[in-house]
Amino acid sequence: MRCIQVINPNTSQAMTETIGAAARAAAAPDTDILAVCPAEGAPSIEGHFDEAIATIGVLEQVKAGREQGVAGHIIACFGDPGLLAARELARGPVVGIAEAAMHMATMVATRFSVVTTLPRTLVIARHLLRQYGFSDHCAGLHAIDLPVLALEDGSGLAQRKVYEGCVNALKQDGCGAIVLGCGGMADLARNLTRELGVPVIDGVSAAVKMVESLVALELSTSKQGDLAWPRLKPLSGRFQFFNQE
Amino acid sequence: MRCIQVINPNTSQAMTETIGAAARAAAAPDTDILAVCPAEGAPSIEGHFDEAIATIGVLEQVKAGREQGVAGHIIACFGDPGLLAARELARGPVVGIAEAAMHMATMVATRFSVVTTLPRTLVIARHLLRQYGFSDHCAGLHAIDLPVLALEDGSGLAQRKVYEGCVNALKQDGCGAIVLGCGGMADLARNLTRELGVPVIDGVSAAVKMVESLVALELSTSKQGDLAWPRLKPLSGRFQFFNQE
Amino acid sequence: MRCIQVINPNTSQAMTETIGAAARAAAAPDTDILAVCPAEGAPSIEGHFDEAIATIGVLEQVKAGREQGVAGHIIACFGDPGLLAARELARGPVVGIAEAAMHMATMVATRFSVVTTLPRTLVIARHLLRQYGFSDHCAGLHAIDLPVLALEDGSGLAQRKVYEGCVNALKQDGCGAIVLGCGGMADLARNLTRELGVPVIDGVSAAVKMVESLVALELSTSKQGDLAWPRLKPLSGRFQFFNQE
Amino acid sequence: MRCIQVINPNTSQAMTETIGAAARAAAAPDTDILAVCPAEGAPSIEGHFDEAIATIGVLEQVKAGREQGVAGHIIACFGDPGLLAARELARGPVVGIAEAAMHMATMVATRFSVVTTLPRTLVIARHLLRQYGFSDHCAGLHAIDLPVLALEDGSGLAQRKVYEGCVNALKQDGCGAIVLGCGGMADLARNLTRELGVPVIDGVSAAVKMVESLVALELSTSKQGDLAWPRLKPLSGRFQFFNQE
Amino acid sequence: MRCIQVINPNTSQAMTETIGAAARAAAAPDTDILAVCPAEGAPSIEGHFDEAIATIGVLEQVKAGREQGVAGHIIACFGDPGLLAARELARGPVVGIAEAAMHMATMVATRFSVVTTLPRTLVIARHLLRQYGFSDHCAGLHAIDLPVLALEDGSGLAQRKVYEGCVNALKQDGCGAIVLGCGGMADLARNLTRELGVPVIDGVSAAVKMVESLVALELSTSKQGDLAWPRLKPLSGRFQFFNQE
Amino acid sequence: MRCIQVINPNTSQAMTETIGAAARAAAAPDTDILAVCPAEGAPSIEGHFDEAIATIGVLEQVKAGREQGVAGHIIACFGDPGLLAARELARGPVVGIAEAAMHMATMVATRFSVVTTLPRTLVIARHLLRQYGFSDHCAGLHAIDLPVLALEDGSGLAQRKVYEGCVNALKQDGCGAIVLGCGGMADLARNLTRELGVPVIDGVSAAVKMVESLVALELSTSKQGDLAWPRLKPLSGRFQFFNQE
Repeated sequence: MRCIQVINPNTSQAMTETIGAAARAAAAPDTDILAVCPAEGAPSIEGHFDEAIATIGVLEQVKAGREQGVAGHIIACFGDPGLLAARELARGPVVGIAEAAMHMATMVATRFSVVTTLPRTLVIARHLLRQYGFSDHCAGLHAIDLPVLALEDGSGLAQRKVYEGCVNALKQDGCGAIVLGCGGMADLARNLTRELGVPVIDGVSAAVKMVESLVALELSTSKQGDLAWPRLKPLSGRFQFFNQE
Repeated sequence: MRCIQVINPNTSQAMTETIGAAARAAAAPDTDILAVCPAEGAPSIEGHFDEAIATIGVLEQVKAGREQGVAGHIIACFGDPGLLAARELARGPVVGIAEAAMHMATMVATRFSVVTTLPRTLVIARHLLRQYGFSDHCAGLHAIDLPVLALEDGSGLAQRKVYEGCVNALKQDGCGAIVLGCGGMADLARNLTRELGVPVIDGVSAAVKMVESLVALELSTSKQGDLAWPRLKPLSGRFQFFNQE
Repeated sequence: MRCIQVINPNTSQAMTETIGAAARAAAAPDTDILAVCPAEGAPSIEGHFDEAIATIGVLEQVKAGREQGVAGHIIACFGDPGLLAARELARGPVVGIAEAAMHMATMVATRFSVVTTLPRTLVIARHLLRQYGFSDHCAGLHAIDLPVLALEDGSGLAQRKVYEGCVNALKQDGCGAIVLGCGGMADLARNLTRELGVPVIDGVSAAVKMVESLVALELSTSKQGDLAWPRLKPLSGRFQFFNQE
Repeated sequence: MRCIQVINPNTSQAMTETIGAAARAAAAPDTDILAVCPAEGAPSIEGHFDEAIATIGVLEQVKAGREQGVAGHIIACFGDPGLLAARELARGPVVGIAEAAMHMATMVATRFSVVTTLPRTLVIARHLLRQYGFSDHCAGLHAIDLPVLALEDGSGLAQRKVYEGCVNALKQDGCGAIVLGCGGMADLARNLTRELGVPVIDGVSAAVKMVESLVALELSTSKQGDLAWPRLKPLSGRFQFFNQE
Repeated sequence: MRCIQVINPNTSQAMTETIGAAARAAAAPDTDILAVCPAEGAPSIEGHFDEAIATIGVLEQVKAGREQGVAGHIIACFGDPGLLAARELARGPVVGIAEAAMHMATMVATRFSVVTTLPRTLVIARHLLRQYGFSDHCAGLHAIDLPVLALEDGSGLAQRKVYEGCVNALKQDGCGAIVLGCGGMADLARNLTRELGVPVIDGVSAAVKMVESLVALELSTSKQGDLAWPRLKPLSGRFQFFNQE
Repeated sequence: MRCIQVINPNTSQAMTETIGAAARAAAAPDTDILAVCPAEGAPSIEGHFDEAIATIGVLEQVKAGREQGVAGHIIACFGDPGLLAARELARGPVVGIAEAAMHMATMVATRFSVVTTLPRTLVIARHLLRQYGFSDHCAGLHAIDLPVLALEDGSGLAQRKVYEGCVNALKQDGCGAIVLGCGGMADLARNLTRELGVPVIDGVSAAVKMVESLVALELSTSKQGDLAWPRLKPLSGRFQFFNQE
């Protein structure tokens, strides 16, 4: 059994469970999913400031996971907060859910659209598209204009709006696939795929398969060059726990 | 058991075996690898003309594989010949080995280099980098200046030149990973990874994991829009076998 | 007299005649137009699969044309199927009609729009724009949502829709010129140019002038590097006719 | 007989003759070449300031040519100075020699290199490549480090350095064609093509064929939108001669 | 006291005063603003031809300013006509108002929109965005469809349309800031910033601060390489006044 | 007097003083410089992990500065860590030193090169170039291969290597200006500018002028859209101090 650590970067326990369940549903029989979230941080991530806060929790969890010997790590927030920093800190591979979903989308359609939560997070998706090389593969970006935690309020409103967002994206953008732009939407992809008749991709399950793949191929984060271990230096104050023992 | 069809687009039996073995080594226990090559075509693929010829063989095999009920298809030549055409023809996902290797490389390093066979094939890699969105992620392109089939001549010369090409790439390009640019190099990646201490990625095994992943997530080629089934029309002459019965 | 071979990549005799007539209307007095189509293949080209099939016919014709001593070759389908492969096979220059039309459009307007047939072919135009470097020069892509052969059904419906597509493009895109996105529209450009008061460009006639130009300047496909003659290798089966005698 | 006006933007009579001769050598039998240069301006063009000066002369000549009824105009300096302004002023098509050469180069090779005069002019070529969309099609930029007028000094030194520049470009860049980056090199292309065995492209003759082509197709500068006639307004002082009578 | 020369490239005295006043309002206490316009040229600039004419006036003024010992120069027309030529001619820094406004906009918002005068000038803004690197930072381009001099006609119509253009831009584009696309709008920015609650940026004042900054840091136009002094050569006719004494 | 807060993101007191002194040397007479560094964090920043740690300190300081009523903020580390997050948190403008230096470099040269410390930080510069739009304006990236704190060791070795790096950049890259890639190099720019005869740009002083400029123009971070205040949510644990009282 290999263990993949799925890190929900926010502190919402409910969302950690949604994400963990989606990860487990996607995992191979010999994969153990360890779903965690930081003990301290922000209850949801809806902007650059929230991402910066969340990044510390992500890194803390990556360090903990590495020490526990997990085979790989997933950053389960659509902005992939702390991705490159986490790669410096990790022995195994680290994959973000936006990254995983976008990569897979390009393999099943010539162009995909993104449906996410608040309009202010669109800029984050836009920056990731450019960083990953997929600006030309994205046909459109859509926001349901509800905060992340509306996905956990039990009313079903956010879920209905995600459905509508997907329908609009297909009509307006001429896209062939849809990427769901929030870890909290992880449980919606399979049903939407069936209802809409196009691939609707959840990054959590995509990332699980991507990490499983990298681990199986013995491909870990390159420690030569840009993503080498952080240079040893004494961190002070609230960051001391990162110091190597 | 699900079956993944690995199509070597050239007619070399030896290379089909090399590729099949690499695919099997990478496959999950519940994956059956069906390694095939066209009955008719070119013994190696080293340019656009060769690719055009090979594409027909690829499509013929995709059709055959689909009729046999395979879960997905791999195009095991580094130019990914016929990729979008094959997707139109396939029910399950289709992944090219250049595509799979490049995608994975971006997840373990900030920039990768490519080591391939003849200089004249570099333009194909360059075009794929642009099509997939990875031009900025590629640190350099290197050719060992030997034809594809030199990898099968038993002398070991080509293998030594691949090793040297990787060493040069690391020194000159400042890259963090290397993508092997030929299906015939599929058996070299694991050893090179260990010897060089950086991820050296073979597209065949990468593609196996990618197709397994897409199949597990029930993500198939989108049949809405650009990659829909080919419009029904009577093909004539040597292409009649493509007509639906 | 020099002879330019105009290859209609589909097997439609009617369209070959339309294309041949347009080519002749554009040709210089000392240019002989040899309009051909493959003996075997697809009756129309509306996707990547169709293009792959058509490419073999294109290559077969290029080989035949070269052996007959034509001065240059035109690929008269808007996806320019097999362009780089044909260049490897040709002695003289090879020009695609999408290529020719797009290049000319950038010389008479700062931005052009494309009006084509089925929506599913837009992705092909989009890829060509990127390959040729004209993504920033294209103001919009429009599909009349009729299949290619509707242009040959005598009803005039497709022709009216092309006119409407051009009007819409001018209104919505702020473009200065229009590129007609199908070889079957070759006879419409001159009238549309007059009716709409902007350059409406047909690729067939554009390609005729481009090949005449290259031939006059003694500029042939470079045989150094990427587009060198295909490496000699025995093709098998239905591809044997490509083997050099 | 149609007349094409070839405008040498500098005031060098010798270079105007070189350019005119190259244009005539390339012209069709029914094309009359009118080679002109401004009465006032700069004797050579080797930077942005020189280009700004030359642009006025170019525009003056375009106006004169238009009034004489020429069928089209060529701007015969490799920076294509005043190209878009000239298009506003012209009834027929206007083509720059850098533009024409670069476009043609992409049709005979996958990548071309440029050999020009002074290093300080490389930035102009670089900007044109971006404006025309060919940054990815250019394999390298080379300067012989001699001023433009050295091409007219009779010593042959500049010509030898151009030859060496081409040889270096082919060796270092892996390009398939070469674009000569100065109107004063117009007479060298044909011999270099033969000696080097790759297409060496002179923009003057390329532009002649391009204008002939556009004229034959009745494609003129679009007067709808960006390149419409300049808005009527009274120019004062030394620019009064531009005022419409 | 240092003196910054603000060059209105058109000959409108009223606009020169608007621009001068805006520059003075933005200038530091120890900055003296010298607002000038060419004695000869075009009364407004609304296209490439107008820009070419204006460029001579800009260069003449830069030369005069340099001889008077000004510390830096501003080109106060949104197309930044003659920018690189002016840099060759200047000792101190030269900044265009489009350039200054666009740079500053990227520091206060992730994406900005442009509101300008006539639709035909949009292409100029589009080209500058590409040249400066900001194509991805621009969310939209809007034209009020009134000529430049409507801003000086006292009716307030143009001003109301600018306001509406800004409102539309904010609604449609999801931008965070607006760049005013005409020197004649220089006096509107501060009020619009307050009324709309987002940064509305005028290039004239932005350029004043930018030149003050470069001067304070002793950063002048690099005279090494591309922007070196124009090579000495005798200009003839109406350009003689540029010859160095 | 307005106060600009200059935040050294690392905890090195010596470097904070170097940076503060450079800022004061660049500041206008009516600008007060408040040079600070986080109480807790990393002593130097040489990778993504270090940046993530430093970002928290940057944000803490931005909050403190905002509460003290500073007019604007500078992030004085060449990776601009936390830039967009800081903008969400700030009332006034926030400028990074890499950003400021790169912007200014494009105004004094057509292309600039970067000289920085460790090779592993080059990827950060490369990503910033892409994010800011300057990839095409950068002629080369050079690392002196010494850690950041070598600039503070008093030996002068790092300073000599920076000088050599600049000389190499000028020779190899054909650039017209140099950007110093580390806050710790802030005191070197003026002398290097004089010694090398080209603009050598330090981001700290560049950022001071940029913030002064934005403040003078009353241009603050747009609070509409992407950079709006962080959504109110209770942060837990070590991040509680960010909660609004």
